[in-house]
Amino acid sequence: MKIYDFEGFPNPARVRIALKEKGLFEDVEFVAINVPGGEHRTAAFRAKNPAATVPVLELEDGTAISECTAITEYLDSRTGEPELTGKTPKERAVVAMMQRRAEAGLLDAVGAYFHHATPGLGPDIETWQCPDWGQYQRDRAVETMHYLDDVLADQDYLAGTDFSVADITAYAGLGFADFAGVTIPETCTNLMEWRTRMAERPSIAS
Amino acid sequence: MKIYDFEGFPNPARVRIALKEKGLFEDVEFVAINVPGGEHRTAAFRAKNPAATVPVLELEDGTAISECTAITEYLDSRTGEPELTGKTPKERAVVAMMQRRAEAGLLDAVGAYFHHATPGLGPDIETWQCPDWGQYQRDRAVETMHYLDDVLADQDYLAGTDFSVADITAYAGLGFADFAGVTIPETCTNLMEWRTRMAERPSIAS
Repeated sequence: MKIYDFEGFPNPARVRIALKEKGLFEDVEFVAINVPGGEHRTAAFRAKNPAATVPVLELEDGTAISECTAITEYLDSRTGEPELTGKTPKERAVVAMMQRRAEAGLLDAVGAYFHHATPGLGPDIETWQCPDWGQYQRDRAVETMHYLDDVLADQDYLAGTDFSVADITAYAGLGFADFAGVTIPETCTNLMEWRTRMAERPSIAS
Repeated sequence: MKIYDFEGFPNPARVRIALKEKGLFEDVEFVAINVPGGEHRTAAFRAKNPAATVPVLELEDGTAISECTAITEYLDSRTGEPELTGKTPKERAVVAMMQRRAEAGLLDAVGAYFHHATPGLGPDIETWQCPDWGQYQRDRAVETMHYLDDVLADQDYLAGTDFSVADITAYAGLGFADFAGVTIPETCTNLMEWRTRMAERPSIAS
């Protein structure tokens, strides 16, 4: 498998954590795409992903898979029994729902703030900005932090008793929030305690 | 199972089509949520879905599942063998990717246009609008129509040779586009032919 990405960015981080959780990290050849330099917008890269985003997973037969939810589900099934996306239909539904909430409400919301209401990746990349939208999404990200904090009052992980891709997505979202200057509210003690636990996982600490 | 929704809206339509495809429509009790009247924003409904969106699937044990991708995957597994979300890991990855493209690039983009750059559901519901964002997302929806048209030049369905949830999502997105006044470009003949075929499926025609 090949993965086209840019190390350190939030969505690439999701896939890298999932690979380490699954013991698949060494099976992947990483190809660096220079996103700050605009390489993700070239025709060559758009042929792999018309949405011009990283990461992209390329399978042995050349099939290009983009969208982190699709990539991490594929990786989870690669070693047989799913461990990160739920085992039963009900578990899978809860994981998918919680991952989507973490993605839309936190990671993507922080992304909208960063790309629209801050200088983002600079004027060559941020060719169209909508500051009002960015500020609104910043508020949404903070609201989501409060929501996730509430969820974690009663359970150890975002989808229940087991670690899942929902935790990976939220963890990457908080990393992006740090980078963009969106601070976790001090009252979100459950979320901060969970984050400390996440940071100790070998897939993240290593 | 119970489904809380508002008939005729685009995301509820996705779940209703999936239910009919799976032969499960009669097993569901529908509970109408008066979205134009703001019922989705009440505390009672937010207890089921903090994101205040329809539809919500309530399982027999009371678990509330929101987010259409999670709901339709659950319904697909309800009758055993998945038919709408792919059988092999690779098929599942392609379906998930194409569904996300149809969702973010078409259905959600039309939604952003409708809610931000038109009167939407009226001033009581559209309490914060960002017209620039809405117009930008309208352009994105039209771009996605061109993209889907290209995909359909070589294959019968959006994820390949088989009908899937990606087709359902795109079909619902085009319905929303009609309603919001976002027209399919005349050159998108593959997309229009595919839409005609979709409309003939018993799950949609009935």
